[in-house]
Amino acid sequence: MVNFTIQDVLIAAGDDYATVDVQVVDSKIAAIAPNLQVIGTAIDGKNKLLLPGFFNAHTHSSEMWQRGIMSMFPLELWLAELYDFAPLDPEEIYLSALGTAVETLLSGGTSVVDHLVLIPGLELETIAIATRAYREVGIRAFIAPLIQDESLTAGMPSGESAQTHEPYFRSTAATLEIIEEAVKQFHRPDEGINILVAPTGIQLCTDALFQGCTELSDRYNLCRHSHLLETKAQEKLAQEKYGCTAVEHLKRIGFLSNKTSLAHCVWLNDADIAILAETQSTVVHNPLSNLRLGSGIAPILKYRQAGVNVTFGCDGASSNDSQDLLEAIKIGSILHNVTDSDYQHWITPRQAVEMASLGGANGLNIADKLGSLTVGKQADLVLYDLTNLSLLPRTDPIGLLVLGRPSNVVNSAWVNGKQIVTDGKVTTINVDELKQELFNRSQWKTKRKSETVAQIEAHYRTFMGL
Amino acid sequence: MVNFTIQDVLIAAGDDYATVDVQVVDSKIAAIAPNLQVIGTAIDGKNKLLLPGFFNAHTHSSEMWQRGIMSMFPLELWLAELYDFAPLDPEEIYLSALGTAVETLLSGGTSVVDHLVLIPGLELETIAIATRAYREVGIRAFIAPLIQDESLTAGMPSGESAQTHEPYFRSTAATLEIIEEAVKQFHRPDEGINILVAPTGIQLCTDALFQGCTELSDRYNLCRHSHLLETKAQEKLAQEKYGCTAVEHLKRIGFLSNKTSLAHCVWLNDADIAILAETQSTVVHNPLSNLRLGSGIAPILKYRQAGVNVTFGCDGASSNDSQDLLEAIKIGSILHNVTDSDYQHWITPRQAVEMASLGGANGLNIADKLGSLTVGKQADLVLYDLTNLSLLPRTDPIGLLVLGRPSNVVNSAWVNGKQIVTDGKVTTINVDELKQELFNRSQWKTKRKSETVAQIEAHYRTFMGL
Repeated sequence: MVNFTIQDVLIAAGDDYATVDVQVVDSKIAAIAPNLQVIGTAIDGKNKLLLPGFFNAHTHSSEMWQRGIMSMFPLELWLAELYDFAPLDPEEIYLSALGTAVETLLSGGTSVVDHLVLIPGLELETIAIATRAYREVGIRAFIAPLIQDESLTAGMPSGESAQTHEPYFRSTAATLEIIEEAVKQFHRPDEGINILVAPTGIQLCTDALFQGCTELSDRYNLCRHSHLLETKAQEKLAQEKYGCTAVEHLKRIGFLSNKTSLAHCVWLNDADIAILAETQSTVVHNPLSNLRLGSGIAPILKYRQAGVNVTFGCDGASSNDSQDLLEAIKIGSILHNVTDSDYQHWITPRQAVEMASLGGANGLNIADKLGSLTVGKQADLVLYDLTNLSLLPRTDPIGLLVLGRPSNVVNSAWVNGKQIVTDGKVTTINVDELKQELFNRSQWKTKRKSETVAQIEAHYRTFMGL
Repeated sequence: MVNFTIQDVLIAAGDDYATVDVQVVDSKIAAIAPNLQVIGTAIDGKNKLLLPGFFNAHTHSSEMWQRGIMSMFPLELWLAELYDFAPLDPEEIYLSALGTAVETLLSGGTSVVDHLVLIPGLELETIAIATRAYREVGIRAFIAPLIQDESLTAGMPSGESAQTHEPYFRSTAATLEIIEEAVKQFHRPDEGINILVAPTGIQLCTDALFQGCTELSDRYNLCRHSHLLETKAQEKLAQEKYGCTAVEHLKRIGFLSNKTSLAHCVWLNDADIAILAETQSTVVHNPLSNLRLGSGIAPILKYRQAGVNVTFGCDGASSNDSQDLLEAIKIGSILHNVTDSDYQHWITPRQAVEMASLGGANGLNIADKLGSLTVGKQADLVLYDLTNLSLLPRTDPIGLLVLGRPSNVVNSAWVNGKQIVTDGKVTTINVDELKQELFNRSQWKTKRKSETVAQIEAHYRTFMGL
């Protein structure tokens, strides 16, 4: 364990900034004050800003393989195309997890929630290799193996038509066994690797799967993660399936809690919002993905007014198509100004930073250990270089960082007190080799033809009234 | 004049890509085909994508001085704060024009339309020094001196209250004389410096100013530029002022034409859209600014369906708060997917590239000379490095560039055949010195108190019903 002291660094203090020293001892923040004694390595913080690491609170790492090429489709058709071309080689899962970690770190994130798509038949191998990638990089990882127990077509409303669906290829019980085994093998919170229970969402999961996940969550003290009401089609489906909203149903079956984080939450009504507040559930806002897929604008200002915890995610790189967390924070803040003419409700840059850090920690039920520059908390820290052209001239550093378009501004990052970014480079893995591998295993191409889209598009257009 | 040949470079060809050589002779594209003879300098285009330079079709360069620090306000209050702290030293105008040019170039733009805020009493000096900055960098500049002849408070609807306004400090005639003098001194299209007539908008300009600008435009063959219906308040004001929409009024007084580009265009109705199409006016979409100021979402898909030419701008860096054109293109494309559930209307990455290049040229009435990779056109070109991590793995290069979050991907840029970016660096000015100057002339600070906002905020809240 290497202790260190960052000297003369800017930190947010009240509504202003202070220049302080920050001591990190035994992987924890030991002291924050001006003119501290240097303990361990001295780090020059001059002309730099120190913030708690952000959380990339929802992504799917292996989507990196299809970024840039997915058709301009809404979620339901986009998913069909995605799965027709999903990577099936564990080595690819490894590389895209590395890439996701690197891009997250270089845009201010020190934690990633990977709602990990599992290779059919190689489920534990997929989890194992993603775990290996995150351990190698040293980013704090929350691996949420994406599970379902209904087939893709069940995820769309039937509308007027009678639809039948193929049964899912694996039983609910077998899926839950895989997750329990993953918990036993890989869930090591003290080492920065966490397994979450993560049914993909009401559109493709039975109550039995949700309830099995809740039981595992209670038994092993695991966080819970799921997609929720990303699209209008899912809102319709919930009514068909349950005769109530998806949120009412999830509350009834006991999935909502203070360790539950829910990606998207675009199509909730006021009563649903009250339920999220009451159950202390967290909304993970993925603004780029919601725009790219045309899902809608999540009512984030309403969530904040109702006291619902909100944080940000990049979502998978096929629906974004990047893993730049600062971009998600910027767009996820300013997007909502067009939804409320009273500017007093708008998210300020400082609020956005708190949502991305403490909000992320809250959503994973670890706000006592992470998410702020507080003595006693774990040292997940990011040091930003304020002399980059994209942050000049000097004005309000947090305003520049959140509202600008910073590039190459992450100078250093530490996870649990270990430095894994130095001078703007991830030092734990060879990023040039990673680039070469990604390059070698891919080729430039244009549109592909998804057979599943061809099968389901007419039905989609019918029930959406297109 | 240095001739050159880019070898083995990817270009868009139909719906696909082709690998070709591109010859540039006497500042024009001379040939595009595989295996051409090398004329002049050979440039390695391997693993790179060549596109026509984009247009940053609406910005205000001196806003760079206040980026990151402006309050979260709607336009009318934001403007009051902006002007209370506007830079008044020509040297600052020079530096922010350099900065705007550099950031535009490094995000794919080779042309900038600078709706330039003039220092009162130093109007021609302001234009002169911005001209000098753009000449030094070598970017193609369209300098649109921002003029008005009514005072700030006249830019808001009076609502129920009786409002009186101070007269503007300079007469309409004196303002028009300044512009005519600027045209004589600085308008040199063949050298890449253009002066535009650019009344700020209907909210602060009399008919006499618009008509004087139109006369200058006709006499000297100048493009016309203005803000148009950025906010709901301006829509109300137009009704108060004219008893009709702003677009109907501008048509009536003859300002709309195929050399007129109009920034924002958020609050237009269907009849207004038909007028823009009929007059061949261009819409400049500034999505980041429209979100940041809560102005609204411009109906861009409707414009496209009506045959209105649309291109992109960053808008000033105080309302964005960056000059990253790729960011504006991305958000300006995907934002509209939430406004139309039929994905067949959504903007594809290739369409976005065409809007940013040919659309920009069309808006400045120079599509015969610029805006596409066409033999005989001027060589305003950008070469993108496709081996950057942010563009890997390899899929569809244009999809990655537009939908991803590329950083450091501009390898080279040429304006009128002259190379001004090489290996990712602007070579015509010393960017390190620029950074140092920007740093030295500024300081980190938090919120400021705008006196003008204090005076007008209550009235704003009243007429907006807040």
